[in-house]
Amino acid sequence: MAHPISPLAPPTFPTLPPVKGVRLASAAAGIRYKDRVDVLVAEMVQGTTVGGVVTKSLTAAAPVDLCKANMKGGKARVLVVNAGNANAFTGQKGISAVEATVSAAARIFNCKRNEVFVSSTGTIGVPLPAEKITDVMPAINAALKEDDWTNAAKAIMTTDTFAKAATRTATIDGVPVTINGICKGSGMVAPDMATMLAYVFTDAALEAGAVQTLITAGANKSFNCVTVDGDTSTSDTLLMFATCQAKHRFVSSAVDPRLTEFRAKLDDLLIDLAKQVARDGEGATKFVEIRLTGADNDIAARRIAMSIANSPLVKTAIAGEDANWGRIVMAVGKAGEKANRDRLAITIGGVQVALAGEAVPGYDETPVTAHMKGKEILIEVDVGIGRGAAIVWTCDLTHGYIDINGSYRT
Amino acid sequence: MAHPISPLAPPTFPTLPPVKGVRLASAAAGIRYKDRVDVLVAEMVQGTTVGGVVTKSLTAAAPVDLCKANMKGGKARVLVVNAGNANAFTGQKGISAVEATVSAAARIFNCKRNEVFVSSTGTIGVPLPAEKITDVMPAINAALKEDDWTNAAKAIMTTDTFAKAATRTATIDGVPVTINGICKGSGMVAPDMATMLAYVFTDAALEAGAVQTLITAGANKSFNCVTVDGDTSTSDTLLMFATCQAKHRFVSSAVDPRLTEFRAKLDDLLIDLAKQVARDGEGATKFVEIRLTGADNDIAARRIAMSIANSPLVKTAIAGEDANWGRIVMAVGKAGEKANRDRLAITIGGVQVALAGEAVPGYDETPVTAHMKGKEILIEVDVGIGRGAAIVWTCDLTHGYIDINGSYRT
Repeated sequence: MAHPISPLAPPTFPTLPPVKGVRLASAAAGIRYKDRVDVLVAEMVQGTTVGGVVTKSLTAAAPVDLCKANMKGGKARVLVVNAGNANAFTGQKGISAVEATVSAAARIFNCKRNEVFVSSTGTIGVPLPAEKITDVMPAINAALKEDDWTNAAKAIMTTDTFAKAATRTATIDGVPVTINGICKGSGMVAPDMATMLAYVFTDAALEAGAVQTLITAGANKSFNCVTVDGDTSTSDTLLMFATCQAKHRFVSSAVDPRLTEFRAKLDDLLIDLAKQVARDGEGATKFVEIRLTGADNDIAARRIAMSIANSPLVKTAIAGEDANWGRIVMAVGKAGEKANRDRLAITIGGVQVALAGEAVPGYDETPVTAHMKGKEILIEVDVGIGRGAAIVWTCDLTHGYIDINGSYRT
Repeated sequence: MAHPISPLAPPTFPTLPPVKGVRLASAAAGIRYKDRVDVLVAEMVQGTTVGGVVTKSLTAAAPVDLCKANMKGGKARVLVVNAGNANAFTGQKGISAVEATVSAAARIFNCKRNEVFVSSTGTIGVPLPAEKITDVMPAINAALKEDDWTNAAKAIMTTDTFAKAATRTATIDGVPVTINGICKGSGMVAPDMATMLAYVFTDAALEAGAVQTLITAGANKSFNCVTVDGDTSTSDTLLMFATCQAKHRFVSSAVDPRLTEFRAKLDDLLIDLAKQVARDGEGATKFVEIRLTGADNDIAARRIAMSIANSPLVKTAIAGEDANWGRIVMAVGKAGEKANRDRLAITIGGVQVALAGEAVPGYDETPVTAHMKGKEILIEVDVGIGRGAAIVWTCDLTHGYIDINGSYRT
């Protein structure tokens, strides 16, 4: 894609250390893109556990069905991801393409079929030529390396303008463990799940049930707090693989106190990745954080914050650097959750704009306008009902979004 | 507003006959706009009944509260509407501005305070200088005419690029009656209610309860089927006034068989007005009709159709004349209502695109692409569950929307 790199991109791609038990390689299979890697394979050692979260879309893609089914086994050996074709809404052909990919992977990487995980991202409704993927698998197998994270992150990109990755370290029982994550996503991004593919790899020794609980809780604090356009993908998939190669005693429960640091670092890594997705929102020029307080409960708070974050009128005002806070009031009102119009308070960039249901006396827009000209916008809203709170990350809605999405397939 | 007239505008403004018992006049009060009419007053004869529907927003504007309260009385004598300032989220000042307007209108037009209806549309959060409205009232009173519908429709415009009106005639008991309607709205348009102000005037002799039932049912088939951007206004108001001047016997029930033709004509007029709103969607270049069938029930059908109509990805694809029907699948999937992925069928411009959960065999995009280049786009979706059906009207999402809304207040 010829779109310029998002002005909100991090300055550099992080350096990811190896994760013991994980080897990666990518290839250019020419599924849709020319002259770039578009297939990623990650091979994990025997004994790797897995958990994950997938889209709640009722028209989910065939690979999502596979991941859901195979997650139940809790074991993983191979992950295969392609970009350029979502293999979604492809009927029986889509199921066959997944089966062909799984069979080839199980044979080449010498594992069980239910230890293979497949994801596809790209255009919906076009049959996926699975042979393009299976044809490059032997070469990929020969090229597997412990440290090819940059190409791994690149191979899964679609309209992304930069590759996304993050790494953290933690200790469990005093033993250091690594957590690496890569992800993609920049449009069709809204919770449950944010449109994306995201994969987390750790050498921690965790039972599958613990992996599942950790990743579900983490997604709720990170990817489910991101929205670009309110559209939800048919392919969203977040998987976490634990190779169990670290030398601490096995952990069987996510609430085990030995995981306190690990949980914090995992959540932090997921939030880092999720924010990178918002920073690469299609056409984004502003990164927006919405802090919602005073709602009836946390779910209501999230819903109101999302109503603000997804409002085209709020998003275009931010793009226009216009402190048009009346549109925030509108978005609170339409969210369908309790809000007290006459106690509503709004702060933009730390400056109180509205209080007790109207503009603050002597409201001076100057500092707010200055804040709106920056790249990082902070909006705080208190709806005056209770103690529910939420944070949501999004971006503005610009001409770039229209450009990218009015001609995606051409 | 310097925006060019929508390419989807009707070729001419309709000629509206007088409605016996209604007189209108408009004035340029300079509330926000220069050199144009921005205040409308409609005076109705004694005995006029009223019913209406207002926004479900929890942050509704002060004039909405007034309309809700006064509708209970069922009687109307004066309607005052201003454009340029919504008098929303203006706290006690907003209530005072409404009270000042009501008091002046009751005095000048010699009626009760609870027979005055007020609407305001425009920027949110800015105190409304009510004296600008009350100052022009005596001149308006002197200028009242039976046939000034064109200025009436113009006076209530904000970002609208054309004035919106419609007229119908019907007979009740063999007596001809007139139904005239004017409305405004082009952004912040989504059901419950579509953002808009809309006023219907008829000389039919209807009790207030009948008016209320008729307009509620009509709104549900018209304005509640329109969306531009999914944003819901704090000011949406639809009122219907019946002057009871026609010489048929009084009708007290909306289901009275004598109203069969009247109901049909009223619904038709409301649909006409609602479609004009979609045709003037901010930045619109395509008018889109979405026909949803096969849902669990009609409410589910509406919700899925709205999910398609509000999807930024669907709307930008339409703007780009791209028959990217995969995004329709996505929008069905995210709607949260039952849909059978493997029975889903999609038709665009009458051409079957997808059937039984995948592209039709030998799908030829040529005729669909030709349809996408037109100004009127028809999308038909069957979700394969039950017999629920709905129709929704919307428009595409273009650079024009960003232009208009990124700089609304400047």
